[in-house]
Amino acid sequence: MVPTVNEMPHWLTKRAFLTPEREAISDGYRMWTFQELHERAEALAQKLAGFGVKSGDRVALLLYNHMEYAAFIHGLSFLGAVAVPLNTRLAPVEWAWQVTDAEAKVWVFDESFAQTVQAITLETKTLCLSRAEVEAASASGGETSLLERIQMDDPATIMYTSGTTGRPKGVILTYGNHWWSAIGSVLNLGLQTDDKWLACVPLFHMSGLSILMRNVIYGIAVEVQAQFDPAEANRAICERHVTLISVVSNMATRMLDELGEHVYPDRFRCMLMGGGPAPRPLLERCKAKGVPVFQTYGMTETASQSVTLAPEDSLAKLGSAGKPLFPGELSIREGERELSPGEEGEIAVRGPHVTPGYWRRPEATQQAIQEGWLYTGDIGYVDQDGYLYVLDRRSDLILSGGENVYPAEVEAALLSHPAVAEAGVVGEPHDRWGEVPVAFVVLRAGEELVEEVLIQHCRERLARYKVPVRIIQTNHLPRNASNKLLRRKLKARLVQEEKRR
Amino acid sequence: MVPTVNEMPHWLTKRAFLTPEREAISDGYRMWTFQELHERAEALAQKLAGFGVKSGDRVALLLYNHMEYAAFIHGLSFLGAVAVPLNTRLAPVEWAWQVTDAEAKVWVFDESFAQTVQAITLETKTLCLSRAEVEAASASGGETSLLERIQMDDPATIMYTSGTTGRPKGVILTYGNHWWSAIGSVLNLGLQTDDKWLACVPLFHMSGLSILMRNVIYGIAVEVQAQFDPAEANRAICERHVTLISVVSNMATRMLDELGEHVYPDRFRCMLMGGGPAPRPLLERCKAKGVPVFQTYGMTETASQSVTLAPEDSLAKLGSAGKPLFPGELSIREGERELSPGEEGEIAVRGPHVTPGYWRRPEATQQAIQEGWLYTGDIGYVDQDGYLYVLDRRSDLILSGGENVYPAEVEAALLSHPAVAEAGVVGEPHDRWGEVPVAFVVLRAGEELVEEVLIQHCRERLARYKVPVRIIQTNHLPRNASNKLLRRKLKARLVQEEKRR
Repeated sequence: MVPTVNEMPHWLTKRAFLTPEREAISDGYRMWTFQELHERAEALAQKLAGFGVKSGDRVALLLYNHMEYAAFIHGLSFLGAVAVPLNTRLAPVEWAWQVTDAEAKVWVFDESFAQTVQAITLETKTLCLSRAEVEAASASGGETSLLERIQMDDPATIMYTSGTTGRPKGVILTYGNHWWSAIGSVLNLGLQTDDKWLACVPLFHMSGLSILMRNVIYGIAVEVQAQFDPAEANRAICERHVTLISVVSNMATRMLDELGEHVYPDRFRCMLMGGGPAPRPLLERCKAKGVPVFQTYGMTETASQSVTLAPEDSLAKLGSAGKPLFPGELSIREGERELSPGEEGEIAVRGPHVTPGYWRRPEATQQAIQEGWLYTGDIGYVDQDGYLYVLDRRSDLILSGGENVYPAEVEAALLSHPAVAEAGVVGEPHDRWGEVPVAFVVLRAGEELVEEVLIQHCRERLARYKVPVRIIQTNHLPRNASNKLLRRKLKARLVQEEKRR
Repeated sequence: MVPTVNEMPHWLTKRAFLTPEREAISDGYRMWTFQELHERAEALAQKLAGFGVKSGDRVALLLYNHMEYAAFIHGLSFLGAVAVPLNTRLAPVEWAWQVTDAEAKVWVFDESFAQTVQAITLETKTLCLSRAEVEAASASGGETSLLERIQMDDPATIMYTSGTTGRPKGVILTYGNHWWSAIGSVLNLGLQTDDKWLACVPLFHMSGLSILMRNVIYGIAVEVQAQFDPAEANRAICERHVTLISVVSNMATRMLDELGEHVYPDRFRCMLMGGGPAPRPLLERCKAKGVPVFQTYGMTETASQSVTLAPEDSLAKLGSAGKPLFPGELSIREGERELSPGEEGEIAVRGPHVTPGYWRRPEATQQAIQEGWLYTGDIGYVDQDGYLYVLDRRSDLILSGGENVYPAEVEAALLSHPAVAEAGVVGEPHDRWGEVPVAFVVLRAGEELVEEVLIQHCRERLARYKVPVRIIQTNHLPRNASNKLLRRKLKARLVQEEKRR
């Protein structure tokens, strides 16, 4: 008799029933209502079922930002299949690794990826299908019964993220995680029937995917843009009634540059800024211009926002990421000990929006999540009023144009070259991208450095944005007693290098 | 590792942490911020602990509509104690019955009830305390540790409601019920930081109590008014920035009468109208005047709204109560069979906002809730688009000025008089109150009817609004083969009586 929240009616079905005629998703040219989105998602589910996709199967999606992305995400949910969104900017070997690790039953890719994907040899029996092939397929006779209810503890998505260990790990997010993330956000940012959220961040990232979830749960419109273009984003805000947008700081900078002397209309009520601490001058500039910027702190493991400023604090508490959203919790820790306000330590978060763990990585899961607390590896402190200030993402993390670059992953690519004995990668400040990776290498005896060769070696193994812009040869790398690489010291050395040049 | 939603940080603590300085509750003269509400609730919890209130204890509240009501509701939650709000309009014997049935450990009442309450002899060892006594008490030394977390399946409140069986039953509502009710509402009505909800309906009713819950979960302001006064309600909307109000139809009528030629400001965005189907002319009048009226269908058992019109349908679907709120469900049934659109049947609702059952009434619970579906006893149908039209509340229910009058309860009072052999009670239309109860009685052989005596007999046992306005003597009551009273036929007879007069 106890009311259960372990399941609920399927979100998209419910939404299409509640507000069928409302605008659901558009791209500036086309528009689908919720009823149309629902029909397309159900049709796709039938087609995918025809290709053998069943409950629990992983389906990798290598898709650009377009409306069909939403149809695929929801379509898979009607089968109980798990979406594995792939970063379109990765190198083919990186896709192969993720598809293999996820043991994807099907891999759907946009047409332009066809040649690349077909050249990849997978260790798994993954069926590779272009999106056009799926869309053109006849349904499984419409016989497959689609799920009418969502099981909150079922995995909805697996998104890969790297870490200090090098190899990317699949972050499992349940339907419950996505739901509670949307609820936490709405209780902070509010909700208006005429809201429209601009998705010009990648839909394969949590920042974009979470917009597709809010879309359906809130019943608000979403505009999807193929890629970020500051003029196009500004046009959507000024001319097409966008009221909320998700950005990282360098996007905001470019939008303000492009906006020039103009101002945003009053109905534009939220520029949600994630992806690391925003530079103070940018925040000041937003404040001066009346841009409703809301700093937020989140990650894939927390299904997007975990901590966000409240509307009344957005300009008053400049520089803070805010307070943990309802009903989440935040703690600054040193190991299991909770630190006091003002003390710097590791940021830990807890709540129903936090991942149950990493796909088939029980050890990594156990290490990251203890007693419900996700240890983020990021450093910060809370002030006396409980506002979070993020000092640094994981000490070694490089933030480049909204993407996370994990040094360990780049170092692994360098070390796979026979000439390289040791490698260390750090971020170097960059005007447009925030940071770019730079590598230090120690060569094996007798080897000589040909920078271009090593960079090419990396290009074959890594996404473009992960490839070091420069490779510096050195005789030794700074290490501690247990031989752990000290990247902070390496960074200091980079500053020295800069001065010398 | 699975994220849990069985518990969360205490709502008021979380809210006071998130937005301490925001206006929480006011009464037109005084105002408390969320921090102040939190401090008062915690202080009350300590005082109540000093009187021996512990987790699981029931505490009856016989309080008028005032800000302190909120402090008591939340204060009890800090102890894990269950609030039992009493209807201030009941007769003393009715209070006694509810306090006894709930086995309340403490009964807190406003000063003006002191004499009446002290004259009542209870079968339970209930400690009777005036509100002033509680507030003036010293804390339990501040030693009692208050709950930091809310257990979603714990009972938060027990509210009494009658039914066809005569004796009121205690509807248990868990924290989860209240939470999900608030979430379902926000995903329909939206949320603005500057929202202010006017509570001029009784806080001892679900319509009022649910405002106190939304207050804290949403972080919006609430204005409490001691009683409904149309001029005062209009002033709050026009002068004190109220954006939402909960009403029953006769309140709306009186507000519109009072408003005259004036109109409401644009920021007033929702007049939530519950308490039975609204008269069509009233809805037309609201539409003509641009009043944002939202019909809703709910009851104590569903922690207020279960079905509400969406903003875009509020004027287009006049007469409908709307669609079931996220993530709730609706079904029109005949027994266990689901009927088709257009077919009239019993309204059943399901979802995490539905009560787990009646306090210590396993049979009544089992009868009302089957496979998660609450059978409401109300009659209605859904149209082809899924909009609910409520035709009639429980066929025999009398709706009088926002209060439910259950004929069986009034009949029981009549039958307790030695002269009465049989009794039947039905509603008679009334301009101001919607309906008022009228009784038919069959006297025992040799007895004579003295109407005034019987009415006085009822007054001693029933709330004023339940007392029949007229008692009609008759020789027999219409009954079916199994001797069940046919109140519909009795109603028809009343119409005949009217014509004859």
